[in-house]
Amino acid sequence: MALRSLPTLKFFSVTIPTQYVVHVEINRPQKLNAFFGPMWFELKAIFEHLTHDPDVRVILLSGAGDRAFTAGLDVEQAAKANNPLSASVSDPSRKATSLRRHILELQDAITSVARCEKPVIALLHGYTYGLGIDLSSACDMRFCTNDTKFCVKEVDIGLAADVGTLSRLPKVVGGVTSWVKDVCLSARPFSAEEALKNNFVSRVVDGGKPELLKEGLETAKYLAGKSPVAVLGTKNILDASWGRTIEDNLNYTAVWNSAMLQSSDVQKAMLSGLQKRTPTFEKL
Amino acid sequence: MALRSLPTLKFFSVTIPTQYVVHVEINRPQKLNAFFGPMWFELKAIFEHLTHDPDVRVILLSGAGDRAFTAGLDVEQAAKANNPLSASVSDPSRKATSLRRHILELQDAITSVARCEKPVIALLHGYTYGLGIDLSSACDMRFCTNDTKFCVKEVDIGLAADVGTLSRLPKVVGGVTSWVKDVCLSARPFSAEEALKNNFVSRVVDGGKPELLKEGLETAKYLAGKSPVAVLGTKNILDASWGRTIEDNLNYTAVWNSAMLQSSDVQKAMLSGLQKRTPTFEKL
Amino acid sequence: MALRSLPTLKFFSVTIPTQYVVHVEINRPQKLNAFFGPMWFELKAIFEHLTHDPDVRVILLSGAGDRAFTAGLDVEQAAKANNPLSASVSDPSRKATSLRRHILELQDAITSVARCEKPVIALLHGYTYGLGIDLSSACDMRFCTNDTKFCVKEVDIGLAADVGTLSRLPKVVGGVTSWVKDVCLSARPFSAEEALKNNFVSRVVDGGKPELLKEGLETAKYLAGKSPVAVLGTKNILDASWGRTIEDNLNYTAVWNSAMLQSSDVQKAMLSGLQKRTPTFEKL
Amino acid sequence: MALRSLPTLKFFSVTIPTQYVVHVEINRPQKLNAFFGPMWFELKAIFEHLTHDPDVRVILLSGAGDRAFTAGLDVEQAAKANNPLSASVSDPSRKATSLRRHILELQDAITSVARCEKPVIALLHGYTYGLGIDLSSACDMRFCTNDTKFCVKEVDIGLAADVGTLSRLPKVVGGVTSWVKDVCLSARPFSAEEALKNNFVSRVVDGGKPELLKEGLETAKYLAGKSPVAVLGTKNILDASWGRTIEDNLNYTAVWNSAMLQSSDVQKAMLSGLQKRTPTFEKL
Amino acid sequence: MALRSLPTLKFFSVTIPTQYVVHVEINRPQKLNAFFGPMWFELKAIFEHLTHDPDVRVILLSGAGDRAFTAGLDVEQAAKANNPLSASVSDPSRKATSLRRHILELQDAITSVARCEKPVIALLHGYTYGLGIDLSSACDMRFCTNDTKFCVKEVDIGLAADVGTLSRLPKVVGGVTSWVKDVCLSARPFSAEEALKNNFVSRVVDGGKPELLKEGLETAKYLAGKSPVAVLGTKNILDASWGRTIEDNLNYTAVWNSAMLQSSDVQKAMLSGLQKRTPTFEKL
Amino acid sequence: MALRSLPTLKFFSVTIPTQYVVHVEINRPQKLNAFFGPMWFELKAIFEHLTHDPDVRVILLSGAGDRAFTAGLDVEQAAKANNPLSASVSDPSRKATSLRRHILELQDAITSVARCEKPVIALLHGYTYGLGIDLSSACDMRFCTNDTKFCVKEVDIGLAADVGTLSRLPKVVGGVTSWVKDVCLSARPFSAEEALKNNFVSRVVDGGKPELLKEGLETAKYLAGKSPVAVLGTKNILDASWGRTIEDNLNYTAVWNSAMLQSSDVQKAMLSGLQKRTPTFEKL
Repeated sequence: MALRSLPTLKFFSVTIPTQYVVHVEINRPQKLNAFFGPMWFELKAIFEHLTHDPDVRVILLSGAGDRAFTAGLDVEQAAKANNPLSASVSDPSRKATSLRRHILELQDAITSVARCEKPVIALLHGYTYGLGIDLSSACDMRFCTNDTKFCVKEVDIGLAADVGTLSRLPKVVGGVTSWVKDVCLSARPFSAEEALKNNFVSRVVDGGKPELLKEGLETAKYLAGKSPVAVLGTKNILDASWGRTIEDNLNYTAVWNSAMLQSSDVQKAMLSGLQKRTPTFEKL
Repeated sequence: MALRSLPTLKFFSVTIPTQYVVHVEINRPQKLNAFFGPMWFELKAIFEHLTHDPDVRVILLSGAGDRAFTAGLDVEQAAKANNPLSASVSDPSRKATSLRRHILELQDAITSVARCEKPVIALLHGYTYGLGIDLSSACDMRFCTNDTKFCVKEVDIGLAADVGTLSRLPKVVGGVTSWVKDVCLSARPFSAEEALKNNFVSRVVDGGKPELLKEGLETAKYLAGKSPVAVLGTKNILDASWGRTIEDNLNYTAVWNSAMLQSSDVQKAMLSGLQKRTPTFEKL
Repeated sequence: MALRSLPTLKFFSVTIPTQYVVHVEINRPQKLNAFFGPMWFELKAIFEHLTHDPDVRVILLSGAGDRAFTAGLDVEQAAKANNPLSASVSDPSRKATSLRRHILELQDAITSVARCEKPVIALLHGYTYGLGIDLSSACDMRFCTNDTKFCVKEVDIGLAADVGTLSRLPKVVGGVTSWVKDVCLSARPFSAEEALKNNFVSRVVDGGKPELLKEGLETAKYLAGKSPVAVLGTKNILDASWGRTIEDNLNYTAVWNSAMLQSSDVQKAMLSGLQKRTPTFEKL
Repeated sequence: MALRSLPTLKFFSVTIPTQYVVHVEINRPQKLNAFFGPMWFELKAIFEHLTHDPDVRVILLSGAGDRAFTAGLDVEQAAKANNPLSASVSDPSRKATSLRRHILELQDAITSVARCEKPVIALLHGYTYGLGIDLSSACDMRFCTNDTKFCVKEVDIGLAADVGTLSRLPKVVGGVTSWVKDVCLSARPFSAEEALKNNFVSRVVDGGKPELLKEGLETAKYLAGKSPVAVLGTKNILDASWGRTIEDNLNYTAVWNSAMLQSSDVQKAMLSGLQKRTPTFEKL
Repeated sequence: MALRSLPTLKFFSVTIPTQYVVHVEINRPQKLNAFFGPMWFELKAIFEHLTHDPDVRVILLSGAGDRAFTAGLDVEQAAKANNPLSASVSDPSRKATSLRRHILELQDAITSVARCEKPVIALLHGYTYGLGIDLSSACDMRFCTNDTKFCVKEVDIGLAADVGTLSRLPKVVGGVTSWVKDVCLSARPFSAEEALKNNFVSRVVDGGKPELLKEGLETAKYLAGKSPVAVLGTKNILDASWGRTIEDNLNYTAVWNSAMLQSSDVQKAMLSGLQKRTPTFEKL
Repeated sequence: MALRSLPTLKFFSVTIPTQYVVHVEINRPQKLNAFFGPMWFELKAIFEHLTHDPDVRVILLSGAGDRAFTAGLDVEQAAKANNPLSASVSDPSRKATSLRRHILELQDAITSVARCEKPVIALLHGYTYGLGIDLSSACDMRFCTNDTKFCVKEVDIGLAADVGTLSRLPKVVGGVTSWVKDVCLSARPFSAEEALKNNFVSRVVDGGKPELLKEGLETAKYLAGKSPVAVLGTKNILDASWGRTIEDNLNYTAVWNSAMLQSSDVQKAMLSGLQKRTPTFEKL
């Protein structure tokens, strides 16, 4: 199976700040990194490439510019484009079919981030609205600046969030808490502090976006130094635990590790630990 | 399908403080709003009516009087009434059948709150014991005064809570944490502060019950101004996420929205957003 | 069904500090209570005995000595012993089969703690690394001293944790949060304070190990005074809620209580409550 | 919990051919027993009464007249009545909400048959079309005459069957077989012989409807002579097996029988077996 | 969302024998239609196109030539190609990662058939070995000639079938029967008659491949005349029933039909039924 | 992990009729192989040994003597022994706890057969009543003589079958069919022919028990010649499919085979196939 090649990108930039670490940046700052049609395909193409690229061990995801991770859907574009919502289909069942296919395709783009074998750290600043929650919920970790403005915005545009927030928020914050209902039903903005208190982010970084990127990069470098076999397995098994019983997950873990414990990484890591040396691991 | 009519109520009061908002009050303050036989049927009848009433968008649930949301089951009544526990059936399998039918019926009353299509906000003050936890766990949000006294009381009357707490607490606070086990196994009381820290309530209101009702009403009014199609869908999909995989829930969301995105609310909400106007939505 | 007898123990001590309370201590302090081969079998034998012993109502689990609950796997022993990892099987599928059987057996030892019918309180101090997380995640409650050092260490030895942490941590802290991913992927140590903030422990005790043991014992005595029928049922039903829907769990609860509400404990507990007396319950 | 009383019935007849056996007959033969509005409510009311009636142990369900069990939905009535389909709601999301509520209510009527604690035997003859499949799939056993004409008719009226067939057929015939897809996608009629070969019915009775009723009654009498505790438990546990794992179901079974094995029926049945006598069991 | 275009095909032929019916033929008869590398991608591309093509309502899938539907994997090609199995990776964990990615990709090609919104009828003749079972199990219906030779061949090449048979056979034949275990564990061939008796195929056609194609085409034309909204919904809901509870599936059905019952097809189909006319339905 | 040793057996005989094949015989023919106390422990000990014994690839399970596979529970013994049913515990909740523990332990003995990694073929003759159905349902295949008499006997002794039949029958015959309900609710005996028609057995052998044993042995030898890695994996994955979604099972299969495809068996089996030789596989 060949590695999927990375297409030419117009709305994202992909750089390699240090070995094994890739930085993916949503790059439409003049529109607050709002999403429209072609961006979904770029997003999916990027993550379908990175998931299998042996030179990649950790991914950072952020938004270009000073003002936003992403302000969400580009509503103006959505209004004018010949999109499924405005299509001139009169039969409601046929329109529903078209909408369902469209939603599934958008969901699939976001899910390409969640499906990525390597850890993805979302670095959030400024407006992180609507789609910004859907997208960062599909990442493994979320760090933010202390002035990030969050909002599950969809109710304000007359719909239930349908590309991931409602499915993934209970997983990443722990349950369908009173707070989850509050912010999802009201579409009210919330602060970095509130996001931290309710477990949506695990770190709030003082000092603005440069400090955030620095902390993200340090964490990524740290993870990139670990056994990629161990890191990938840990992510896979943790994700497989959601919505399944503990018995199921334990058995799945045993099957997974029946191959993975045969890794040379185990001997290398143990030995390095005893000898206080830093191990070097083969690509994966 | 006709709207189920609201019966004459003896132990609850139902009022409409403002358009689209209904206030349901447990109204047996002289007994600390403790529950006995007929109250279960009233509770269910109320929520089976409100769930489909197009004039209702948000529901507030509180307890009358100064002292309690509800002190739980009315143990004295339970002791004297010819209830299943004290019934003179000698065969344990037949008694078990009777008890199982009885528990399922009580659970069904509480579940009528959880099944209600519209958001329900529990406003808690004073004693919120036993059944008070079962009942408020079936609501979408929980706010409380800072002197609310909580207790998962059932172990103290020799039984495992069986009308909802043990099933819903892990959903609404996030998992079967050390704290959940602590308060459920010990039946020890806990404070508003502890309830907030452990995500059982999302707001603690200073200033007593009047302030609590005010904050509840403001939140309800705010939600009632949103698209009812969006609010109802958000609640439904969030609730459907529990105990199911993310893949399942994403597909369910796509099917749900294939009809709901055809709503006139979407155009109205988008346009109002662009024009900075307050939209008005049709009844649902 | 006869009670399984307790074997002679070399690496654990089992004492009865007060009626109905058992204290299980990992007793290999000179090696920081690190685990190797025979300890797994002792652990399982102890909990398979205690689960059905009518003289036991609550179990405390701690580590001997001043320095550690347990530092995890004894890597030196693991390296030299003729263990599955180092076995001279060349065919990867046969080695995988051997490893899978081995992992399932170790998981089963840890699961014997989770399966124990009686509540188990983990009292953590000093190093609580690797296996220390797997083991304490299988307990019902976790208390710790304020100088406990936690670490999901497995990534540092080149593997995904496979005897329980990745399956149980989402259950006991609430979801696959950003913090869970952070500490599991990075293998970085974390403090008692961080463990409390993220719901891994529910109490941090000041004053060192003696104070911790004292608080653990008081809690255990308190629980031991409650109806054992109620306590056992509460634990069973809460554990059954994970990975299942609320509807499923409610029905399971009704079936469970159809027998358990016939307990003499219910009458005793109710009456004692009304009469302000302390009830005494039969053994279970 | 009081027994729900049986309402006055216009479209069903309910008789007691022999002790403990109830015969429910769809009674609108002039319209081939086709269903319209009020019949759904009668159906539900009947089964909500019978499920808890201690004088009932087995239920027979058949259609009046010579020509049909039921020809399905009364399309003419459906066309003229002010039903949800023809309602003058223009917003598709509000129409969808109304339709969803309506479907859930009809499903609930059919589900009242499946939820009935006592075994229900469907006796099928003549036209068993559309709703006839939905309804009989909710029964425990299906017997038919050799000239019964079956049809999953819904595709022919432009819709996917939504009151039970598509959910229950895979359960009652075993999987989503090539045959299930064939008859459900094509809406082609099929014979008694084909129904037997594909496990939809378990008996085809020669000699027409009188012979069918006779065989149904004999089977019902036979079952009514057994321990009602054993019969009810067997039905409950078998139904609980669908869509769940074997481990889950085994545990559920153990909890169920922890009460039910205390039945006096066990001693009576065992003793009668050894003494070759016919036991008599208490009502349930 | 644009329709995915159909690529140039080298190993499949795609024809339109009659309106709305597409015939996909595996076209490598000189090698008994055995699969190797590029064929998987063609298969997936074809079905990702057909699933959304409004001119397609039913799909026939067969094998070119007289001798085989498909003899399975082309083992010779597999042996010489630089495939994952023979790749020179020495570390077992890295080889496992490569194999896992490869299997998931092949599974995904087969799953594209199962995911296709339109019904797919497999027409089987001659050798239907290994992959032939995986592939036809992902179809909705299976018809065969009376001289078809079936075999779950994988055990004979030293592996457990991993691209679908073991997951889908229990779904399409009904459970993990003694027969399923027999043919899967032994890799013994079985006849058309045995396939029919055990519900793997639903029709065995006398007269060889031409008769089979004729019967397939007639069935396809028949289905193509039905409401595409009804047919697509029926397939979707039946497939969603597997591995889920009936309650879950009923709710899903209600949500699905809340949009689909608004179809013009319903009125057209009902009216045509009453007027004994053949309806014509819009494209979907 | 050491192989569990086989204890001295009093009620079973274990022989090795040919290399890699083990024959387990229930050996209490004077009591129609009816089960009582110590037999459960022997059964479990045997299968916990065989599952990991590298000299075992296939297991045959039959009953000694001419008259029965097993007549089920030894009711006389059950009546007189100090078993949980007759124990003098008066509190129904404590009796329920004791019964639940007892049932779980008996289930676990039967489940040891289902958990066995190697295929188990049940060879059934004569009385196969009650426990005989529970036990053979836990096997992979079931063959029988044409005079076998089957009965799900439990309802006749006043209880719902609780050691496996109700959980496993839907899995091994395909769904909760009308026939399954019929034989489970009525406790009526059924013939070999009926068992074959309804997929409980897959072969009925003419000529009595010697012919049955001969056919069983031939099948076992045939399977024992296959790659043990492939056979074990096929059984494991098929069993894991029940009660889970296809997506789940496909992913599990990919993880399983990521280790197992690295087997030397694959090369050996492929090569032998091309060279028309019989391969020899290493022990597992």
